[in-house]
Amino acid sequence: MLKWKERMTALDQLKFDANGLIPAIVQEQKTGRVLMMAWMNRTSLEKTLESGKTHFWSRSRQKFWMKGESSGHSQIVKDVSFDCDGDTLLIQVEQIGAACHEGYQSCFFRSMQPGGEGFRITEAQLETPEQIYGKK
Amino acid sequence: MLKWKERMTALDQLKFDANGLIPAIVQEQKTGRVLMMAWMNRTSLEKTLESGKTHFWSRSRQKFWMKGESSGHSQIVKDVSFDCDGDTLLIQVEQIGAACHEGYQSCFFRSMQPGGEGFRITEAQLETPEQIYGKK
Repeated sequence: MLKWKERMTALDQLKFDANGLIPAIVQEQKTGRVLMMAWMNRTSLEKTLESGKTHFWSRSRQKFWMKGESSGHSQIVKDVSFDCDGDTLLIQVEQIGAACHEGYQSCFFRSMQPGGEGFRITEAQLETPEQIYGKK
Repeated sequence: MLKWKERMTALDQLKFDANGLIPAIVQEQKTGRVLMMAWMNRTSLEKTLESGKTHFWSRSRQKFWMKGESSGHSQIVKDVSFDCDGDTLLIQVEQIGAACHEGYQSCFFRSMQPGGEGFRITEAQLETPEQIYGKK
């Protein structure tokens, strides 16, 4: 009872936006690599905390999704922190396989350099989308 | 000329939301610590790329702000990357002083543990807000 009450207190610190959503940054705990950013509502955060795997809300599909449900590339939750304003989450995970649906370890695989030209690919593609989503 | 054209190509990969904004995650390059998340519009991103210091758009105040303009705790931009969907930025910086306006190195100084109770403070407060904003 006390545990649940205290978690409620923690969740009540959070500010969800007009659509009931909060951005969740996902970071690989072992390497510090920022892997992706996706959106959660209160229920997907509760599912994440209860199951220990990341669950999000898809704005385009208007449905819950668990990271890895299609690809097998799930995220095991190690820590959930929130910022001073209570309007952003930072989730430390152990990432199974590539985090990006395009087959890169991180979704942030393209960089612009300050004062530089255009953008460049900054990491190797581990698998093609066909390899990831064809392997079920 | 060519440089500008190529940067335009990079910026044109980005998807700003209905309010013309894109979330920007700020990470300390040296340590991998995620420091904060704030919002940019296209002009604040261009200011960031041109000046080499982070500039954001305040949704509450409806104005541009440069990180550190009041506190002196500015961020020197080392790299700007964007995700597979082109709707989130990840900015690597050298952080001068504490990133958080509450005096912590990172805004993410409170954590919920999966299966744990409530939340806990995970880092030391380097300065009080009074020390930061009273020192101008």
